[in-house]
Amino acid sequence: MRQVAGMHEFKRDAVRVSVAKGIETDTRLRMSEVIRQVCGGVTVVALSGPSHAEEVAVDLPATIVAAGEDETACLQAQEAFHAPAFRVYTSPDIVGVELGGALKNVIAVAAGACDGFGLGDNAKAALITRGLAEIGRLGRAMGAHPLTFAGLSGMGDLIVTCGSRHSRNRALGERLASGMTGEEAIAASKGVAEGARNAQSAQALSEQYRVEMPICRVIYEVLYEGYPIRDAVERLMGRRAKPEAF
Amino acid sequence: MRQVAGMHEFKRDAVRVSVAKGIETDTRLRMSEVIRQVCGGVTVVALSGPSHAEEVAVDLPATIVAAGEDETACLQAQEAFHAPAFRVYTSPDIVGVELGGALKNVIAVAAGACDGFGLGDNAKAALITRGLAEIGRLGRAMGAHPLTFAGLSGMGDLIVTCGSRHSRNRALGERLASGMTGEEAIAASKGVAEGARNAQSAQALSEQYRVEMPICRVIYEVLYEGYPIRDAVERLMGRRAKPEAF
Repeated sequence: MRQVAGMHEFKRDAVRVSVAKGIETDTRLRMSEVIRQVCGGVTVVALSGPSHAEEVAVDLPATIVAAGEDETACLQAQEAFHAPAFRVYTSPDIVGVELGGALKNVIAVAAGACDGFGLGDNAKAALITRGLAEIGRLGRAMGAHPLTFAGLSGMGDLIVTCGSRHSRNRALGERLASGMTGEEAIAASKGVAEGARNAQSAQALSEQYRVEMPICRVIYEVLYEGYPIRDAVERLMGRRAKPEAF
Repeated sequence: MRQVAGMHEFKRDAVRVSVAKGIETDTRLRMSEVIRQVCGGVTVVALSGPSHAEEVAVDLPATIVAAGEDETACLQAQEAFHAPAFRVYTSPDIVGVELGGALKNVIAVAAGACDGFGLGDNAKAALITRGLAEIGRLGRAMGAHPLTFAGLSGMGDLIVTCGSRHSRNRALGERLASGMTGEEAIAASKGVAEGARNAQSAQALSEQYRVEMPICRVIYEVLYEGYPIRDAVERLMGRRAKPEAF
């Protein structure tokens, strides 16, 4: 049983706002589902989007999305957090927003490897774009709106993560490209590299919903099954020519 | 009348493949429409996507989309250009692919200004994401599929352009941020900064289709109507709080 400290401090009907990202590995639950399970059916809004704390703290402009099934709760969260330099959009698609926020980290690992191998800007843009397309396909199968992944919690957040020198997920990918095994690269991570855990969730969800996710699958196999990452480019580029499906 | 050299060298039924990007300023025609008008109703496929020539030339991996209404023609183009390091997807949405390839340059100008002002990674990711959302809204009104803009010719190409030190459009935005007027900044451009011309097309199409395009509009006003770009951030961030619409 999960333990949550200080639960008694909340009013029963208070809206809970989740700023956690990820999919619980064993249960495949999104963070808002975990909160709802632990707190017993409360209303949850998920905040997600490109919002590095270092920049938000010094009032540089940022945008974010407040997502939830309860529109009133989303508007409450929007009103509570909206500020001159912090623009909050609302979305009814909490499934898409939470999936985007979690699974983008797997693509960020791939983008780090792409940088590590010096594959160039075209390849990295392709990875990000096709990575979001496969997350969107999974999202659609799970009931999300595919356009959500083109939004702040998908593409927006991924652009920041893949461009940042500070991203732990990107750094994990660079270590893989340098020749470390999955185990070594994870062990060398400072703090938690969410992408490594979420690669397991992506793999499990991909099988459960029978959605092809070639980039997430490669990262999973590299991290946990000893697949050599130097073979990944040929494997991904060598797939049968296709329509640009989402 | 537009002049086209060497037209007699083409077979009448040959598929024309367009690699030009942009919207003709006066007519608002896409490049494939111009080709069709000049060549008289031929079949045209548009190639577009993140494919900096410097990298393609040395066989670094790149992906691109071949778009056209004629599926057979798209498959022919795919077969002709597909190579181990050059992955070609097909798309029936030539309207979306050509619009994405043209209008992304306007967003790249805005991204350059964002860098010039030192607004940070969150702001730049927001600009790119919301910029594509407004191009997608216009595209939808013009008959394109909104998800096309989340693809290689929209998001993919924009990631490359906005990250590149060599982009003329990005550089134009940086000059605006440094205090130059629109006229001065355009005059200082080396070669053609397509974003400046396409800002006019975006403005015209936005009015014609009555679609709100706040980022493209700001860039248009800065370039051609003397609007002070230092006021743009407040204007864009200060808009009424909204749902994350596409």
